[in-house]
Amino acid sequence: VARGDGVDALSRAGAEAADAADPLAGFRERFVLEDPERIYLDGNSLGRLPVATRDRLAAITAEWGERLVSGWPEWIDAPARAGEAIAGLIGAGPDEVVVSDSTTVNLFKLTSSVLDARGPGALVTDRHNFPTDRYVLEGLAAQRGVELRLFDGDPEPSTLPCGPGDVVVLSHVSYRSGALADLRALQAAASERGATVVWDLCHSAGALPVDLRAARAELAVGCTYKYLNAGPGAPAYLYVAEELHDRLRSPIWGWFGQRDQFAMERPYDPEPSIRRFLAGTPPILGLAAVEEGARLTAEAGIDALHAKSVALSELLIALHDARLAPLGFTLDSPRDPARRGSHVSLRHADAWRITRALIERADVIPDFRGPDSVRLGIAPLYTRYVDIWDAVDRLAGHVARGEHEAFDATPGRVT
Amino acid sequence: VARGDGVDALSRAGAEAADAADPLAGFRERFVLEDPERIYLDGNSLGRLPVATRDRLAAITAEWGERLVSGWPEWIDAPARAGEAIAGLIGAGPDEVVVSDSTTVNLFKLTSSVLDARGPGALVTDRHNFPTDRYVLEGLAAQRGVELRLFDGDPEPSTLPCGPGDVVVLSHVSYRSGALADLRALQAAASERGATVVWDLCHSAGALPVDLRAARAELAVGCTYKYLNAGPGAPAYLYVAEELHDRLRSPIWGWFGQRDQFAMERPYDPEPSIRRFLAGTPPILGLAAVEEGARLTAEAGIDALHAKSVALSELLIALHDARLAPLGFTLDSPRDPARRGSHVSLRHADAWRITRALIERADVIPDFRGPDSVRLGIAPLYTRYVDIWDAVDRLAGHVARGEHEAFDATPGRVT
Repeated sequence: VARGDGVDALSRAGAEAADAADPLAGFRERFVLEDPERIYLDGNSLGRLPVATRDRLAAITAEWGERLVSGWPEWIDAPARAGEAIAGLIGAGPDEVVVSDSTTVNLFKLTSSVLDARGPGALVTDRHNFPTDRYVLEGLAAQRGVELRLFDGDPEPSTLPCGPGDVVVLSHVSYRSGALADLRALQAAASERGATVVWDLCHSAGALPVDLRAARAELAVGCTYKYLNAGPGAPAYLYVAEELHDRLRSPIWGWFGQRDQFAMERPYDPEPSIRRFLAGTPPILGLAAVEEGARLTAEAGIDALHAKSVALSELLIALHDARLAPLGFTLDSPRDPARRGSHVSLRHADAWRITRALIERADVIPDFRGPDSVRLGIAPLYTRYVDIWDAVDRLAGHVARGEHEAFDATPGRVT
Repeated sequence: VARGDGVDALSRAGAEAADAADPLAGFRERFVLEDPERIYLDGNSLGRLPVATRDRLAAITAEWGERLVSGWPEWIDAPARAGEAIAGLIGAGPDEVVVSDSTTVNLFKLTSSVLDARGPGALVTDRHNFPTDRYVLEGLAAQRGVELRLFDGDPEPSTLPCGPGDVVVLSHVSYRSGALADLRALQAAASERGATVVWDLCHSAGALPVDLRAARAELAVGCTYKYLNAGPGAPAYLYVAEELHDRLRSPIWGWFGQRDQFAMERPYDPEPSIRRFLAGTPPILGLAAVEEGARLTAEAGIDALHAKSVALSELLIALHDARLAPLGFTLDSPRDPARRGSHVSLRHADAWRITRALIERADVIPDFRGPDSVRLGIAPLYTRYVDIWDAVDRLAGHVARGEHEAFDATPGRVT
């Protein structure tokens, strides 16, 4: 595979040349890199720490110490401010997103609100959707006495098993295979059948273009600690299309969703805006980290990030075909970049031991997803072409030499 | 009021002498004090920043940057670790508390879980309970079609209006008046009538002794950003008595409540422990701050903190009687320290303007609760006797000179 300049694109020199030409290369320095030798391919699980976020967290901590309760008139708008910063990354209007709670709690709130407003249809998702999404639906189905309908395989518009009043929860990108759902076509198919979709954007926002308004998407949730780099357990976000703001109500009626919050002696009367989906006191430190992470992503630009994600993934897949397939690996992610998110899953019978060997012996950090996948995340803000090349090189070397065989074959606790 | 040493206890010299004799005086230096002139009497709304917490937040941020996803095997236990630190402050067993979500979300989870397990009784609280507590119950009553029963006045064991299957939500300390409920007697009265109580400890934990096990309390929630000093919007906690762990289920089924969380291809099967009340990915920075705050409180000791809180409150009330009552103030908190929490509310027709004048002209920070209360919080970890004396002195001076009359009489947005 020769580049225009005659360099073999699958050689390390080819990777170096790609880095030299990368318009986003400078963003790597915007992150804390305590570990120059480590190759971190798990940004799809927990993103790196931006330098600006480290500084902002110190500043907001100092602000708490200094301003004390007088900080609140400014902090109180942080969920909406962070929401606006994310809105621009997912094709939402500035008043359609708030940052609050966890993805799990937000999914519960939105799904529950649809059941209340549109009547008790079935709850629908794919059997292999991310566990917490499935658990939330299991719980609501049990509590409300509605059907939980799990379907096999990736969601396809023509076969999406839903009808009037149903609520469908779909991940934009599969956490396991990296398969990218056709958000626009699936939304159209569901709407046509009278069903409501709640999108889970955890594995897409920040690395891929998402255009919720253009797809006429009504509801979405997502986390901020993967490609948005907001830190472990940082607060999640939720999106509700503006035209639904006065029709849906959170099941959790809390004081931060109350209109005129500090006139306290009145019954609950929710804000007419997206803020009605807030519940308790918002986490100010976490929200500051979300704002910084979203800002950095916006500065790089989603289209540029996506282009780099595709190029890195294509390099990884080409190297897999050349060097890993002969060692027993198979590609578990779609080959078509238009159908793929920003991580690549490789299957191997020894996936667990190989993951441990990579982490402990090769300073390459992928993650393992049972029973047999090594997941390699491509965070285009800080991942280099040479990182991909070196990771595959170390991986091929370790497996070829059988070094993983020194590790226990029984999967242990991982995240 | 002469002290044993002949110093007038209500003089500034009396306050200075009390500070000199205060065994907890050294704890003030454990906090960031950027504002030595400011008198902060709003620690019951947002506590000060402990020095250890500032340092710990920087360390945990660095840990994220350095350890990345490999931090999770340790972080994953943070909700239980922080819960154990709080358990010791509220008379709970070490495995009976977790830190997660907000007070509002936790109250929703616990109340909902009782409705599911024990059948649909009425939801009962006092009409003047903290708004978010009332809103949660309003929402659950509307959604479940059960009665919402609001009663007037402070809760009393003999008249608590509840029966079999009802769920009663009671604040241990009234956010408005500071009245302290008789937790043990109210719990006994409710249990005897077949009702379940969910206690809200927001305004007591960290400043007063709470002994949940001794009172046979079954359920409780509370925040960490008041007397526990964990920062704006820090995660809240929930307590479930051990004997109920296998009988109650959170309505929000999430992956952090799942037994063997990373064996992902199974239906929901909740942890047999308190962890079943977790939902989404826990906020690691906030949890670190909760741990530090709880640790500092434990180091000082709840009994010593309570003794100092009472002494400071008694001084404040005595000074009110001597210097503020003649200016039109009335005491809105119980006089009996056994019936009072750790804040004192003063009523005055001009409460709003007086609060503004104090903050903007006198560098004294109380808070306002509509329609006519100035709330003075006593955080015994860092509040000095001279702070109380100076605050009353400045307050009396401003009101006597009519300085508050320069401020707009219409209450604005406050927190």
